[in-house]
Amino acid sequence: MNLILLSGGSGKRLWPLSNDIRSKQFIKIFRRPEHSIPMGTEYSGGYESMVQRIYRQIRTVDPDATVTIATSKSQASMIHNQLGSDVGISVEPCRRDTFAAIALATAYLHDVKKVDENEAVVVCPVDPYVEDDYFVCLKKLCEAAGSGEKRLVLMGITPTYPSEKYGYIIPSGQGYIFKEKPKKELAEEYIQQGAFWNGGVFAYRLSYVLAKSRELLGTDRYEELLANYENLEKISFDYAVVEQETSLQVLPYSGTWKDLGTWNTLTEAMEEQAIGDVRFNETCSNVHAVNELGVPILVMGCKNLVVSASPEGILVSDKEASSYIKPFVDVIDQQVMFAEKSWGSYRVLDVEENSLTVKVTLNPGNKMNYHSHERRDEVWTVISGSGRTIVDGMEQPVAVGDVVTMAAGCRHTVIAGAEGLQLIEVQLGKGISAGDKKKYEL
Amino acid sequence: MNLILLSGGSGKRLWPLSNDIRSKQFIKIFRRPEHSIPMGTEYSGGYESMVQRIYRQIRTVDPDATVTIATSKSQASMIHNQLGSDVGISVEPCRRDTFAAIALATAYLHDVKKVDENEAVVVCPVDPYVEDDYFVCLKKLCEAAGSGEKRLVLMGITPTYPSEKYGYIIPSGQGYIFKEKPKKELAEEYIQQGAFWNGGVFAYRLSYVLAKSRELLGTDRYEELLANYENLEKISFDYAVVEQETSLQVLPYSGTWKDLGTWNTLTEAMEEQAIGDVRFNETCSNVHAVNELGVPILVMGCKNLVVSASPEGILVSDKEASSYIKPFVDVIDQQVMFAEKSWGSYRVLDVEENSLTVKVTLNPGNKMNYHSHERRDEVWTVISGSGRTIVDGMEQPVAVGDVVTMAAGCRHTVIAGAEGLQLIEVQLGKGISAGDKKKYEL
Repeated sequence: MNLILLSGGSGKRLWPLSNDIRSKQFIKIFRRPEHSIPMGTEYSGGYESMVQRIYRQIRTVDPDATVTIATSKSQASMIHNQLGSDVGISVEPCRRDTFAAIALATAYLHDVKKVDENEAVVVCPVDPYVEDDYFVCLKKLCEAAGSGEKRLVLMGITPTYPSEKYGYIIPSGQGYIFKEKPKKELAEEYIQQGAFWNGGVFAYRLSYVLAKSRELLGTDRYEELLANYENLEKISFDYAVVEQETSLQVLPYSGTWKDLGTWNTLTEAMEEQAIGDVRFNETCSNVHAVNELGVPILVMGCKNLVVSASPEGILVSDKEASSYIKPFVDVIDQQVMFAEKSWGSYRVLDVEENSLTVKVTLNPGNKMNYHSHERRDEVWTVISGSGRTIVDGMEQPVAVGDVVTMAAGCRHTVIAGAEGLQLIEVQLGKGISAGDKKKYEL
Repeated sequence: MNLILLSGGSGKRLWPLSNDIRSKQFIKIFRRPEHSIPMGTEYSGGYESMVQRIYRQIRTVDPDATVTIATSKSQASMIHNQLGSDVGISVEPCRRDTFAAIALATAYLHDVKKVDENEAVVVCPVDPYVEDDYFVCLKKLCEAAGSGEKRLVLMGITPTYPSEKYGYIIPSGQGYIFKEKPKKELAEEYIQQGAFWNGGVFAYRLSYVLAKSRELLGTDRYEELLANYENLEKISFDYAVVEQETSLQVLPYSGTWKDLGTWNTLTEAMEEQAIGDVRFNETCSNVHAVNELGVPILVMGCKNLVVSASPEGILVSDKEASSYIKPFVDVIDQQVMFAEKSWGSYRVLDVEENSLTVKVTLNPGNKMNYHSHERRDEVWTVISGSGRTIVDGMEQPVAVGDVVTMAAGCRHTVIAGAEGLQLIEVQLGKGISAGDKKKYEL
């Protein structure tokens, strides 16, 4: 099975666990089944993220599936960090909605991965919370598309209530009509007419979308799409393709399917009341808490509450109210306090006017880019592990307790040894910013 | 007026703002009136602590009051940090309940401060939340005691409800009877009999307590009490003295008087809904939050809640439930993450198995003790200000960006210049502990 997973969004609705660079699909919040840790990937304390969960589920149902993740540049490091280096990534140079993303990923499969244009591929979002039978259904979609009977095969999710949050696929004569987020009364009508929720899952032969790309974007070549990406039209795959298509098939899916886009829905999928060091008194009920900080959270006498603490901030919210978080988070003007990178992670420990103190964790054998800063000096103190530093071309072994000072302008990197390496980095200067960075080849 | 302020307790009930070394009276939570900042003392962002508030109020009512704080060794640094070096401190070598503490402080006034034994002194707790007229009443107590008409003068607080939390002073014939924390029905009876709450405030001539000390402790000499302190009986002043005394006068006080011992009562005295970076949505009601962390707290859709975040942890509690916090905090086994010292403050930024990263802030002109550690190396990186370091006897100027490395065993200190100094300290070694410290004379 060929699979394209769409990994989008910045996911501010799950603040403080999600931020500008950590989208909701990367938050490690689901209890990982035992004996399921792929080698060479990053898991923390027995929990997996949405993207790790879905990737594991795919591998369970189809160990040979070719998985490509369509995503933005800013997520590529995180994906490799969480899924390892085997996974294919189709990197969008900028955001151009789902039609361009799917066209690019399809061209990537064809031109880069050399998948035959008569093979089928199934596209699905990276963030639904589903059970393994969902992937069995994906396989069926793929097979149906491969048969060529219909040009496009969709997954139709059997509705369990007249939701106002989803799109509906309504049977109409020989075809289907698509409706976005209807009011409850309309939703009830649709359901009586045999409608499905639109899960955003489609399967097609590569040739189908390649043809659409030529027609709508002027080319189906991967390199050309990539080079010209920022000029492509912003249009959704639903609007550009699905709703125009008359040769459609809908395969029903009636298993578990949840959109975990808000704290309210996410906590429903948590198997435990708490992740991290959280203590409850006996009068708490329906409280969920996630604590990524190294200090305890104590919750007493609360009901229907979500508490979430990360290096970015602390949320304390009634579960219902948590759906309306976005405008509040939008106005929080804050530097990113924590990030996972392909090589490891960093965490801001202290922010002062003219200094920033950061803890850097390098995974075994990994290294930073070779880089310099114009407007800040840096001091590294190695606190665990060992490795090598290269400073202005000079290579030196380093171990716990070693201190490296780097003046502004000086080129530097650190390479972790076999057990990884952690260091405390003190940045010093006026106008410290993440943008002040030049990269070099080593 | 001579005043002894009793500053006791570790105040775990206000966790996470209070901890083993920061008692509740040192938490800066009250909006400070403008133009009231004494020179040379530490205030933070317009807020003052209970001890700062009461000290300021005393100075307002009686600028010439002689104030002595009876406290433990562990609080002495904090008191000087918050009140400056002028205040007298009677340091108890260990905790021996209020009779020993008051006997020691009285002997301190007589022997060290050379106060005449015919002068009166008033003793009161450091932590009631009161308005200025309370101190006017203290003056009256002091005058009444000075007149010598009765041997002991107490403050009786006019009850506003039949509280189960306070002691009662009940008129009985020519004298008074004392009752501890009665059930509500009994409290109502007492109030009908004209009872007062016992505010723990007493005034007497020094000679009175000096005589009691000779009688009960065998001596009234300050040096002898101090040297023999740990052998003194653990007994409260109420039990040893007040309840035995027949020559008693009670002066009523009916102004504001609150015991801010729990989050529930403390937040009632907060003039604002929040201290620190806290955001509320529009559906919050009766929520108070205190945020000592550098990242935002967002509270949505909550009622009757207190949220408090410090480097020690995070509390989210229904206000009523917050009174029952103590057993939960007692089982939190944690190192102290933040402390104010006479010379400034430190804050733990990161804890790893074999390293600890700390931010040290030295107030202008202040210095650490000259000290060494057996089992850890340290690295200092200066991030603001300037000063001098002394390492194994060698003195050197230091400024922003300078790095000082100190191997285990090496003696070291840092002295801040006129604008203060901040540094990041990385501690490295196995078995890092606060106890691993030897002090030396410089």
